[in-house]
Amino acid sequence: MRTLADIAQAAKAAKYEVARLGTNDKNRGLMAIAHALTNRSAEILAANAVDLQEGRKNGLGEGLLDRLLLTEARIQGIAEGCRQVAALSDPVGEVLWQRTRPNGLKIGLTRVPMGVIGIIYEARPNVTVDAAALCFKAGSACILRGGKEAFHSSLCLTNIMRDALAAEGLPVNAINLVEDTSRETANEMMRLNGYLDVLIPRGGAGLIQAVVRNATVPVIETGTGNCHVYVDASADLDMAARILVNAKCQRISVCNAAESLLVHQDVAEAFLPLAAQALAPDGVKLHGCPRTRAILGDAVLPATEEDYGKEYLAYEISVKVVDSLEQAIAHINTFGTGHSECIVTRDYTASQQFLDQVDAAAVYVNASTRFTDGFEFGFGAEIGISTQKLHARGPMGLEALTSQKYIIYGNGQVR
Amino acid sequence: MRTLADIAQAAKAAKYEVARLGTNDKNRGLMAIAHALTNRSAEILAANAVDLQEGRKNGLGEGLLDRLLLTEARIQGIAEGCRQVAALSDPVGEVLWQRTRPNGLKIGLTRVPMGVIGIIYEARPNVTVDAAALCFKAGSACILRGGKEAFHSSLCLTNIMRDALAAEGLPVNAINLVEDTSRETANEMMRLNGYLDVLIPRGGAGLIQAVVRNATVPVIETGTGNCHVYVDASADLDMAARILVNAKCQRISVCNAAESLLVHQDVAEAFLPLAAQALAPDGVKLHGCPRTRAILGDAVLPATEEDYGKEYLAYEISVKVVDSLEQAIAHINTFGTGHSECIVTRDYTASQQFLDQVDAAAVYVNASTRFTDGFEFGFGAEIGISTQKLHARGPMGLEALTSQKYIIYGNGQVR
Repeated sequence: MRTLADIAQAAKAAKYEVARLGTNDKNRGLMAIAHALTNRSAEILAANAVDLQEGRKNGLGEGLLDRLLLTEARIQGIAEGCRQVAALSDPVGEVLWQRTRPNGLKIGLTRVPMGVIGIIYEARPNVTVDAAALCFKAGSACILRGGKEAFHSSLCLTNIMRDALAAEGLPVNAINLVEDTSRETANEMMRLNGYLDVLIPRGGAGLIQAVVRNATVPVIETGTGNCHVYVDASADLDMAARILVNAKCQRISVCNAAESLLVHQDVAEAFLPLAAQALAPDGVKLHGCPRTRAILGDAVLPATEEDYGKEYLAYEISVKVVDSLEQAIAHINTFGTGHSECIVTRDYTASQQFLDQVDAAAVYVNASTRFTDGFEFGFGAEIGISTQKLHARGPMGLEALTSQKYIIYGNGQVR
Repeated sequence: MRTLADIAQAAKAAKYEVARLGTNDKNRGLMAIAHALTNRSAEILAANAVDLQEGRKNGLGEGLLDRLLLTEARIQGIAEGCRQVAALSDPVGEVLWQRTRPNGLKIGLTRVPMGVIGIIYEARPNVTVDAAALCFKAGSACILRGGKEAFHSSLCLTNIMRDALAAEGLPVNAINLVEDTSRETANEMMRLNGYLDVLIPRGGAGLIQAVVRNATVPVIETGTGNCHVYVDASADLDMAARILVNAKCQRISVCNAAESLLVHQDVAEAFLPLAAQALAPDGVKLHGCPRTRAILGDAVLPATEEDYGKEYLAYEISVKVVDSLEQAIAHINTFGTGHSECIVTRDYTASQQFLDQVDAAAVYVNASTRFTDGFEFGFGAEIGISTQKLHARGPMGLEALTSQKYIIYGNGQVR
């Protein structure tokens, strides 16, 4: 078994080789990985069967088992993901600007690989390949630490990827899986200063907060989304209902799903019954403020402060009637997680004020929060959605996995 | 005395107000601060006298006392700095791009204020104003924690800035100084998650590493510079000597000063005596590898591994003869701190290889490393020089103090 120290050394050495690969070489590696995954699917399914068996023995819930499950079709999907990453344009080497200074120095800012990227994630084998493919295309080596419930699957996938790189004469240590899945080793990984240039946690709030609290390497915080739909006094109420249902119900387990509905008092009596009716077919449970309950009745549960801060990830939503746009914005900036926020309005000034003053990665006028996604934004793929303000905010595609470097051309300048 | 908790609350509340200020309002505030600093210089000098007296009593060295010292002229300089920041263009609100997606959604990426910026720095009263001015212009509230030796000066400067904002009807809590200068409170500040959007340490390596190790909020690591000048086989040796002397001697105490000289073996015999002669007037002490000592003699001290990793910040330099460009690059990537690196060469391929493969914030061909600086790069002012790869790398001007936000204009889109 490779220790974390071995892996850290190997990845640090490999990062210079990966950084030097041209786009064609990187794409060749990704296509070879896709091909190998398809070719060796029997091995992957066998490894996955071990994880599933252990998972059942350990009493994992059906949801977790489903995330863990690989099928022939899912493996094809993962391989197709690699081909899609190969098709993305390469961010490395892009010159963002170059200027000539009065002293003749030509100073340019260039996009360069990050170096070594760490990813800590849960028991989703597909993330092993998705993350490795994105890091590789972005010119970085990666150190992956997946949930231990998916260990056999992830190790098998990693070995197949490494074999594919080796067969192509590409740096094998571009892709590394932490084989010791103890919590101590995960904590050690969070403190690999000098080896890891960035660490990205992908998963639930508990995992992400553990990384934020324990890491001494730079971290990009991803994920939690307490997203709001605010129905303004001037909203088209039918549009508001359509957006609400989509944002809440189209896929409840994701971070860009709506968890809270705010309604301007002027339209509360008209809109709330419409909203309740629209959410009824999906059996959405409402947690309402007193004014909401006065309109919709006691079938609506009373909303607590805790409800307003909750990411349900379920067919539940908190509902609050607000006095004004300003109160809606203040509520969102208090209870939101800085992910995705939506106003439904026909009023120009209200739309601008909401866009300006709501503090979140993505702010929508008259569209569902469900669009906060690398594919929907046109980035092709994403490594996660950043909810912090440093480096990257919102869906992170290949560019978010790169750093920058100033290159300066002189002819003998001194100060 | 305001507690850190009071300050954190106040700054968080103020950030929304500061973010909403237009450029004219922010500039008005900065000009008022400049005016007030000049007007109230007697108070500042009196507060500074207290710090100086305590510093002398506590046996601070002359260098530290000089950094602490304010004079009428230095106060004018600080005020002038505020006027210069007012003159910089405002990064907030810049739309970096906007695209229309196939479904008609218009997605744009906009530069927005960071929110609350924390700065931890040493006993330099001027940083109190410089940092506050930059954060204010960037639309953020700031929490400043300066070295306790400069406490009376920093508090006086902060109060003057806050008074000036109040008199202009601008949010006073945009600028906050941590008044409890204990180490416990500094540590508490590093863990103000939910309040601080970023924390930037400015100062020596010890301070920066303490912040990197202890902080749970996002940090931008700044500062340490083990910068190299590499003299290639094809270098113009006179130019190389000029660049070397400038990079080493023009100002020894700064992070972009050269700390190590690498010389290609083909020109070692010709260049090393030239280099020794050029550095002699400043009395630069050389720490050389065996080959260097074979050429220059035993007057050169033997270089240890520690020397190669050392930021002397003094009239000292390590010297190593390398076999090849590749060895020079590998040495720099091993011992460098990712700050500023220079090759002196006449060879096109060597210049490109050095630019591509050296992993640092700023890579120079034929120019002194001393140019890595916000003013020299044309950013007007800087909050520090980032040596990490996340968010900002190299000199950080106003743009590095901002975040981004996606704004999405829809007309009812759902997924």
